[in-house]
Amino acid sequence: MGNKNITIGLFGFGCVGQGLYDVLNHSQGLKATIEKICVKDKNKKRKIDATFFTYDREEILKRDNLNVIVELIDNADEAFSIVKDAMNNGVSVVTANKKMLAENFKELYELQEKNNVALIYEGSAGGSIPIIRNLEEYYDNELLSSVKGILNGTCNYILTRMELENKDYGDVLKDAQLNGFAESDPWLDVAGFDTKFKTLLLTVHAFGIVLTPDDIFNTGIQNVSYDDILYAKQRGLRIKMLGVSQKVGDKFRAYSIPHFVDRESELFNVLYEYNAVEVEGAFSCKQTFVGKGAGSHPTGSAVLSDISALTYDYKYAYKKLKKALSGNNKIEDGIKQIEYDFPIKLYIRFQNREELKDLEILSIEEEYKSTNTNYIIANVNFNSLFNIFNKRENKLFICAI
Amino acid sequence: MGNKNITIGLFGFGCVGQGLYDVLNHSQGLKATIEKICVKDKNKKRKIDATFFTYDREEILKRDNLNVIVELIDNADEAFSIVKDAMNNGVSVVTANKKMLAENFKELYELQEKNNVALIYEGSAGGSIPIIRNLEEYYDNELLSSVKGILNGTCNYILTRMELENKDYGDVLKDAQLNGFAESDPWLDVAGFDTKFKTLLLTVHAFGIVLTPDDIFNTGIQNVSYDDILYAKQRGLRIKMLGVSQKVGDKFRAYSIPHFVDRESELFNVLYEYNAVEVEGAFSCKQTFVGKGAGSHPTGSAVLSDISALTYDYKYAYKKLKKALSGNNKIEDGIKQIEYDFPIKLYIRFQNREELKDLEILSIEEEYKSTNTNYIIANVNFNSLFNIFNKRENKLFICAI
Repeated sequence: MGNKNITIGLFGFGCVGQGLYDVLNHSQGLKATIEKICVKDKNKKRKIDATFFTYDREEILKRDNLNVIVELIDNADEAFSIVKDAMNNGVSVVTANKKMLAENFKELYELQEKNNVALIYEGSAGGSIPIIRNLEEYYDNELLSSVKGILNGTCNYILTRMELENKDYGDVLKDAQLNGFAESDPWLDVAGFDTKFKTLLLTVHAFGIVLTPDDIFNTGIQNVSYDDILYAKQRGLRIKMLGVSQKVGDKFRAYSIPHFVDRESELFNVLYEYNAVEVEGAFSCKQTFVGKGAGSHPTGSAVLSDISALTYDYKYAYKKLKKALSGNNKIEDGIKQIEYDFPIKLYIRFQNREELKDLEILSIEEEYKSTNTNYIIANVNFNSLFNIFNKRENKLFICAI
Repeated sequence: MGNKNITIGLFGFGCVGQGLYDVLNHSQGLKATIEKICVKDKNKKRKIDATFFTYDREEILKRDNLNVIVELIDNADEAFSIVKDAMNNGVSVVTANKKMLAENFKELYELQEKNNVALIYEGSAGGSIPIIRNLEEYYDNELLSSVKGILNGTCNYILTRMELENKDYGDVLKDAQLNGFAESDPWLDVAGFDTKFKTLLLTVHAFGIVLTPDDIFNTGIQNVSYDDILYAKQRGLRIKMLGVSQKVGDKFRAYSIPHFVDRESELFNVLYEYNAVEVEGAFSCKQTFVGKGAGSHPTGSAVLSDISALTYDYKYAYKKLKKALSGNNKIEDGIKQIEYDFPIKLYIRFQNREELKDLEILSIEEEYKSTNTNYIIANVNFNSLFNIFNKRENKLFICAI
């Protein structure tokens, strides 16, 4: 186990970038320094010396005394371009950009293989929870059956406050935006995209299956109302936005959907911006990891832990994926292992019946109508959910039971 | 990252040994085989072929085609002798024997250094929870402030059943022994020794401090009564047997004592044989790991994960301990960092006041007397707890608040 000096070129100095800077300054014994930081906005006041900053990405990418690029910018396309260039230059990369990773996973995996460089991203799923490395290292020979969890801090923060403060979605969202717990455009978070990107990454490390974001259905809490919170409350349940990746028989299922969870679940008491991941294996049984899912320092500390791992040349071994790719199998074949044609039991709140027309409803177990709200509890063909996929005009609130 | 073939010599074929055998048989892609198993009892019927077994330890220790010894026997002294011999022969060892590790940590650490062999022991603390490797790898540059948890499945199983089934300690213990959740001599478990051994190991990997078992005060649930359970219940609390290792100011504290925990705590809902560990860091904030703490397959899977790590020559780097040993510091100096002279707030149930005479009580906040039971809530000098340490005749039930 070596103890390399790490010289970092950092892209982005937002929330996580500044968190990393703080954490790095307080960490003991790690031989890592930030040499240069590339940012966009020339006029923004920053709390550290101006000589650290550059506005030209090439100044970092072309510097040859840097051995790690840490990419922490918002824009996934720009991030991809930076990460690609760095890897093609033979430099290892640490990132927390789940959107960029999910949208380009196949290419990013191939770039690692081609250039023999590390791309590690613990901060991209579960915030401070060390889930990716645990799936990769600790559970590598476990017959895992399921990985699921509360992966998005914004959704959990909103759901928690709605329930505990008896408030409407819109009010809590506005407040969350003011407090830094929701983005000004919250769509990717609240509609379950962010949860899905993370689910995609967990699926790679748990099962060795690479999907694209379009392969994974997502719906979120964008249409949740206080009625739904109340429905759950009266039954001793809570609504939690979950990413699910699981093995059922010989097939796998992956989706990002709100779920009712009961008091017995370890997820029930995971509140506000906390995240949690439940891992089920044939032998280790159920394990739960809980920790802060968002925020400058928790994510910064996950990124730091990746940097620290690079001091001893750590790389993901992708053992399960490599096993899946043995023989003539291609990365694209992973999708063949995914099952779409199965019944899923859902609570669906709607305004008028017309809204349900695109769903293949197999059976209705309960139906409730009132002047305020209507809902059904129904078994729906999962496949038909894709008919309402990513349509902002759709006003259904869907919650798995 | 290599992919060595592992040929295992196994000592012990009890609960965990058989669990390992099962898990290994079902694991995919791991190049590890059990070559020979050393057991004691020649007459016991075993579920696998007799040719696997030997009754002579030298037959395993002297075999030169084995590259890993897995030690899973009960007797800590015999285990130590086996592990020492194996390491001196240059063979890596996997063990789950927390008593052996705790009692001989200094020597075992030095043997690793001297012989440049691995000694890994994920199964020794937290059962299936990957806590040691996470402390070692993931939190290596975190400013950790506290590691504490429910580390003993037997205690948690008994406490859970007493509360949920309104039963007395003696009845539940008897039942636990019948069900395999408690040993025929349960003292090491119920009196908090097992929790202490694990706390000692967590203290090494969290803070780089090596203690001996006598340095860590322990008391357990050996004297718990249904009155105590009721006291907790009426206040919305639960009693949990905790191992605690924490930094307070410049000093550290380590002990193994029952605690009241409230509904807000992640530990509250950890029931029966489940274990949980809470890690607090300056930047990652609070993280909780929950999983099965005991049992054949969960512990077997932790042992398997260690074996798997040996395929790429994994060793604990002991970064924090190595840092502590820089300069002229010796392992024995670790104790200097531990604080004993501080007030701790305790609930103490007693029969007559005489029993409290050895405790230095600083102040009493509450006092309750009845024909059945008496208790005080008091601030006690922690140091004075050692006066009642490991005395089976002591009938106090002590619980931290």
